[in-house]
Amino acid sequence: MTAAELAAYMNTHIPLTRAMAVEVVEANEKCVRLTAPLAPNLNHRKTAFGGSVASLAMLSGWGWLHVRLAELAPRARVVIQRQETNYLAPIDDVFESVCGAPSNVAWQRFSRALGERGRGRLELKAEIYSHGRVAATFRGLYVAAVHERATPP
Amino acid sequence: MTAAELAAYMNTHIPLTRAMAVEVVEANEKCVRLTAPLAPNLNHRKTAFGGSVASLAMLSGWGWLHVRLAELAPRARVVIQRQETNYLAPIDDVFESVCGAPSNVAWQRFSRALGERGRGRLELKAEIYSHGRVAATFRGLYVAAVHERATPP
Repeated sequence: MTAAELAAYMNTHIPLTRAMAVEVVEANEKCVRLTAPLAPNLNHRKTAFGGSVASLAMLSGWGWLHVRLAELAPRARVVIQRQETNYLAPIDDVFESVCGAPSNVAWQRFSRALGERGRGRLELKAEIYSHGRVAATFRGLYVAAVHERATPP
Repeated sequence: MTAAELAAYMNTHIPLTRAMAVEVVEANEKCVRLTAPLAPNLNHRKTAFGGSVASLAMLSGWGWLHVRLAELAPRARVVIQRQETNYLAPIDDVFESVCGAPSNVAWQRFSRALGERGRGRLELKAEIYSHGRVAATFRGLYVAAVHERATPP
């Protein structure tokens, strides 16, 4: 899955990414990097709205897992179970969220659980940069599941 | 400050609230209740995007403090320092975030710090409902400050 394919998927299925004007800068197994301009994401202080910052970070984590699972388990559904965002400094310009790969140990544990039980949980971290400095940090717990939910007859 | 005034302030200063179609149902010292429809807040699973859910909760906490400080300290600026959202169930319809007042002890500590040092921190909790059930919980640490930042000459 390329950066353009991830962008197209997000823009089609998650309309808020269009309102936020999210762009995919990089999308591969090493990391997913997303940017958002300030204007559509302003708050009352003329800096970036905390909800936009958390959303961009959440999307970078979800995007990384989406890319990583595209070949391994294309039918897996990924949702978020918990997230925490720390806001370190106000953001007054374009901002970028970078989510990298978790540790090998964490990844092995996750992919084994997904393979054996059809369900795995994985914590991903992201950092949000503006002007080359970390302006916020993010931790998200994602759940991937491959079993379809039973539907009534 | 009325619900209509809070809505107008948010829509003017935080453009993402328009994209999310946030509505203010109630805004007073007891609680702030905000709703958002599903359509502009969809994710790839046809349920509510986690970023929208966290944003609505964050806005309900910020809105409560904004309303509460409108008379007490109208010059105070409120920003978020940290937030955590737990997603308990998928949301497939309109959703509502309710932020109520903190404990009296917490409020007294916050307002004393704001009065004496010009700066106070307050944790607020919100619950996000859909179909009358709690679908997510939120905790946000907000900072209010009344001192203007020093500007270079």
